[in-house]
Amino acid sequence: MRRGAELEVTDRAILYEILDAGKVIHIGIAQSNSFPVVIPLAYVRDNNRILIHGSTGSRLFRALAAGEKLCGTVTLLDGIVLARSAFHSAMNYRSIMIFGTATEISESDKEHALERFTNNLISNRWQEVRPMTNKEKAATMVLAIDLTNISGKVRTGGPSGEDESDLTLPIWAGHIPIVESYLPPIAAPDLPDAAQLPSALIELE
Amino acid sequence: MRRGAELEVTDRAILYEILDAGKVIHIGIAQSNSFPVVIPLAYVRDNNRILIHGSTGSRLFRALAAGEKLCGTVTLLDGIVLARSAFHSAMNYRSIMIFGTATEISESDKEHALERFTNNLISNRWQEVRPMTNKEKAATMVLAIDLTNISGKVRTGGPSGEDESDLTLPIWAGHIPIVESYLPPIAAPDLPDAAQLPSALIELE
Repeated sequence: MRRGAELEVTDRAILYEILDAGKVIHIGIAQSNSFPVVIPLAYVRDNNRILIHGSTGSRLFRALAAGEKLCGTVTLLDGIVLARSAFHSAMNYRSIMIFGTATEISESDKEHALERFTNNLISNRWQEVRPMTNKEKAATMVLAIDLTNISGKVRTGGPSGEDESDLTLPIWAGHIPIVESYLPPIAAPDLPDAAQLPSALIELE
Repeated sequence: MRRGAELEVTDRAILYEILDAGKVIHIGIAQSNSFPVVIPLAYVRDNNRILIHGSTGSRLFRALAAGEKLCGTVTLLDGIVLARSAFHSAMNYRSIMIFGTATEISESDKEHALERFTNNLISNRWQEVRPMTNKEKAATMVLAIDLTNISGKVRTGGPSGEDESDLTLPIWAGHIPIVESYLPPIAAPDLPDAAQLPSALIELE
């Protein structure tokens, strides 16, 4: 995305707010003698770390657990910026970049981590679902990435940096916000009558 | 994202449809003796390649133009899947992964490429904006990545793979679609009266 009215974010509260607004992180690792790989993963922030989870059989998760250096990037697209010139056109966004390594969390920490994931889908979901079995827990690897080396960039608003002489041209300029929203929930077929819509979803109906 | 009802996509028409629905690609490259880096970039598909553009001064673009191996990943989040168990909960998405290297496009190809970028913001924009100057063109590097090594994955619908015994529990299950939409355009301040809203934006007003 073109540099322009981009701002570096250093305030940790804002960095965390951006992380909390996202759901997908792109994790990249190098692979010696091969192509790097960039994988989209669900994540949740838990204090000064983010958590990711995957199958214990996953090649990526085993590489990460072994201490492979990673870069994790979260990007939220917020709008399209139309300048009077193609050159100054841009996109509005919030993005976070994290460098580090991942560490497998301890067994005693796992329950808490899995609860954080589940309640990140919709609030209170962990309290509604059938409890996780030991077999399921054993099949799930949870990794933590410390938010030590974290940076952010944000671009907002309309066009910027345009040439003085462009500003009087009869060309529309401005920006178009992009928002993400939830549609009404779609129930699985053959739900028992007693299976009521979670309260967190009622406002979406 | 947990594997479940995920489908590998091999049909090139569908792979391209997913690419055309996205606007941001996460490009990852390795960096010897350092962390890999994953950068979000605007892109547009142009036949059997995607195009990215950046400043000729960008370190990433110079590394890419020098033939650095890359992985490019596009991810569209389509929904949240609530199973009766945390373990089978998931997200719906469409994702594309491309392995390859980037090549700087020829000067004669540049005009076409920049038009593709600009008209990917909103249709016909290239025909509306002030023409690009030679100086602006010279400051912009456009790279092409061939879509030879491309793969895709899609997950749709409600929960899958749930335990037989979970299906009769009095727990709501289903999915919540997520959609991205444009809000009404916001004009830059002090637009001349003659600067009319582009016809492609009228329906958003």
